[in-house]
Amino acid sequence: MMDLNELSATAVVAAITSNDCTAEEVTRACLARIEEREPEIGAFEYLDPTYAIEQARVLDAGPVRGALHGVPIGIKDCFETFDMPTTFGSEIYAGNNTGRDAAIITLLRNAGAVILGKTVTSEFIAFWPGKTRNPHNTAHTTGVSSMGSAAGVADMMMPIGLATQSGGSTVRPAAHCGIIGYKSSHGEMPTDGLMPMQASTDTVGFVVRHMADAALMRKALLGAEPAPPRPADAPPRIALIRTSHWEEADPVTHTVIENVSNGLRGAGAIVEEPAMASRLDNFTDVAITIQQFEFAHWRAYEWEHYRERISEPLRDFMAEGHKTSFAAYNQAQIDAAATRAEFDALFDTYDLVLTPSAVGEALKLGYPTGSSNFNRMWSLLHSPGINLPAGTGPQGLPIGVQLIGRKYHDDQFLADAAWVLDRIE
Amino acid sequence: MMDLNELSATAVVAAITSNDCTAEEVTRACLARIEEREPEIGAFEYLDPTYAIEQARVLDAGPVRGALHGVPIGIKDCFETFDMPTTFGSEIYAGNNTGRDAAIITLLRNAGAVILGKTVTSEFIAFWPGKTRNPHNTAHTTGVSSMGSAAGVADMMMPIGLATQSGGSTVRPAAHCGIIGYKSSHGEMPTDGLMPMQASTDTVGFVVRHMADAALMRKALLGAEPAPPRPADAPPRIALIRTSHWEEADPVTHTVIENVSNGLRGAGAIVEEPAMASRLDNFTDVAITIQQFEFAHWRAYEWEHYRERISEPLRDFMAEGHKTSFAAYNQAQIDAAATRAEFDALFDTYDLVLTPSAVGEALKLGYPTGSSNFNRMWSLLHSPGINLPAGTGPQGLPIGVQLIGRKYHDDQFLADAAWVLDRIE
Repeated sequence: MMDLNELSATAVVAAITSNDCTAEEVTRACLARIEEREPEIGAFEYLDPTYAIEQARVLDAGPVRGALHGVPIGIKDCFETFDMPTTFGSEIYAGNNTGRDAAIITLLRNAGAVILGKTVTSEFIAFWPGKTRNPHNTAHTTGVSSMGSAAGVADMMMPIGLATQSGGSTVRPAAHCGIIGYKSSHGEMPTDGLMPMQASTDTVGFVVRHMADAALMRKALLGAEPAPPRPADAPPRIALIRTSHWEEADPVTHTVIENVSNGLRGAGAIVEEPAMASRLDNFTDVAITIQQFEFAHWRAYEWEHYRERISEPLRDFMAEGHKTSFAAYNQAQIDAAATRAEFDALFDTYDLVLTPSAVGEALKLGYPTGSSNFNRMWSLLHSPGINLPAGTGPQGLPIGVQLIGRKYHDDQFLADAAWVLDRIE
Repeated sequence: MMDLNELSATAVVAAITSNDCTAEEVTRACLARIEEREPEIGAFEYLDPTYAIEQARVLDAGPVRGALHGVPIGIKDCFETFDMPTTFGSEIYAGNNTGRDAAIITLLRNAGAVILGKTVTSEFIAFWPGKTRNPHNTAHTTGVSSMGSAAGVADMMMPIGLATQSGGSTVRPAAHCGIIGYKSSHGEMPTDGLMPMQASTDTVGFVVRHMADAALMRKALLGAEPAPPRPADAPPRIALIRTSHWEEADPVTHTVIENVSNGLRGAGAIVEEPAMASRLDNFTDVAITIQQFEFAHWRAYEWEHYRERISEPLRDFMAEGHKTSFAAYNQAQIDAAATRAEFDALFDTYDLVLTPSAVGEALKLGYPTGSSNFNRMWSLLHSPGINLPAGTGPQGLPIGVQLIGRKYHDDQFLADAAWVLDRIE
């Protein structure tokens, strides 16, 4: 029998609404798991167990509030919460509380979620890591930046972790932790109350262990209806795009991509390598130019007032950003807009892009925590993306594959991704 | 002789850096004008004259800090400031201070600006007006939402007012106040520390009395180099787009557009009405769908916790937003992206779009404050836009024309707009 903390969010809601358990029992099961494992994993930046139980009790005492009734959710610590501090992963903001909720937190509460606590994010949602360790091997990192949410969900501390992605901040930690990590089409989910890192790509995402929970979250937050499941005999058309970074990937990543491709072909799917991919060859450089310029400008306040309290690698990165000319940034934005329009046309022929989620297995703890070269370009295209667990590397750590969909077609994308996942598992 | 408060920002910087005057003298001149006129105009939400003078003295005591050295700037009260409260135009946030600067405020300070005070914005940057009156006739509104900045600049209280535009919030108040109002290409200027209204179109802009000051601001904030002035004998190619709202415009607006068109033709410019414009016919509806859905979702916290302190019209608008389906919103986003790509191609043939800035003269004080139907579609296209003063209506109030440029080509756009303005004046 499964412990309550191991249930999917969908199962939690079903169990509570059919009186098989209470929100309090689910929350207590999650808290018990956290108490047991948190010293090793370090998923949380802030946790008040008593307050979490209190939220669950309020839910149990009232009517069913919404699609997430009684579901404990870990919140990446870059979303403001009126009842918990928000650090943005920076010591500058230790104890910070603006006294209000990010819009998405209110939407979660309205849907009946238990705001379990704040999960560790890297500094300013960028690359300098927090304390979180990989549940599959605590000598390894989870990658950045949604590290606490990814580790917590992978380690059965909660069914859902709220995340964000600007480069690869949802997909990559999910890949390294062996779970599902979904980022939405850019701009659909409210980022009010989210500290911007680079607004050109900042996007809300979340990590889950079960595909159905992604659709549940979209229903709860946006009112989006799930697309009907794709029939077994109507396979999606898949574009395999290795990208110009293919040779940077570890052999196991090559193997997993080939295995998945072959498996999907065996299930009747077309898997082709379209020529269009070459247009993306230098797109990572475009993404980096935009990121450097924007990060340096958008964090102007911290740079000016608290520079010495920013980690040295991030300071160096910001200094590079200040050297990036506006002309270079502007040209990168023009390139990005043109490539977005061209990329969209790819989906006249294909339903999904298949590509690596990361270079390989999670690196050993420390800095750097790995490369986002397989993620940045897709984030800049504003596409929905997802990591699906798809294998294991030589060190016993998870390997994922990444699917990319058509912008603003997220519900169909999730249905297509579910079809793929069913053929991987 | 001009009073110091009547100088352009460009002239202020020149005067201070050549020791013709001090930043303190300029600031005092602005404050004297404010003291005289503020009871009638109501441009400011927050003003501390002593503190403004103190900022100017610090600048005078040090080296030249940047491109805006000693320029007093009024800040629309939707940008966070660590040293002044930020109300977002809502009584919910009376006295609110998050203890930090919006990124753009830090960039202004770094460039040497005096943060003069916070100017009145409509409630949550939307349509419920603040106290500001039109300097040309105080029985009339300025339009929304950058109302304090527009009135203050028009009334010689300061040379520059920081603004934003999501629908028509910069262009329309500028038109009604007879000054230049420029909104940048969406996404270029940092919105960190700006309360989002509808992130799909929220954009930084500013109001000025002189074209050169717009380029000065872009240099100070982004490091953007101004484009060379367009030669007199190389006129821009102009697309006159009347839009499906043309018949909503007052006769004087029709007359001014015709006069400007004829004047530009007389100066050698091609002014044509391209067929492409029909694509935009229902684009205002698309913009309204996006605005309703996003505003309702992005202000979820205030809706949930302080609903009774939101103005009734805005509450009604949010209630409509909650009735807007995700499917309708999603389709509107798909339409917007497709139209953006098509609109961009128009600029292979034309340099500028010419179109009305507003229906006509500013309405009498009260609610509603006028329509943004001539602005919303361009904001959704993410284009740069500008109001140029171009005439006077039957009530003696200003009439403007609106120019729209190619996304991410703002510096050339401003040079082209300057060419046009020179032929209007």
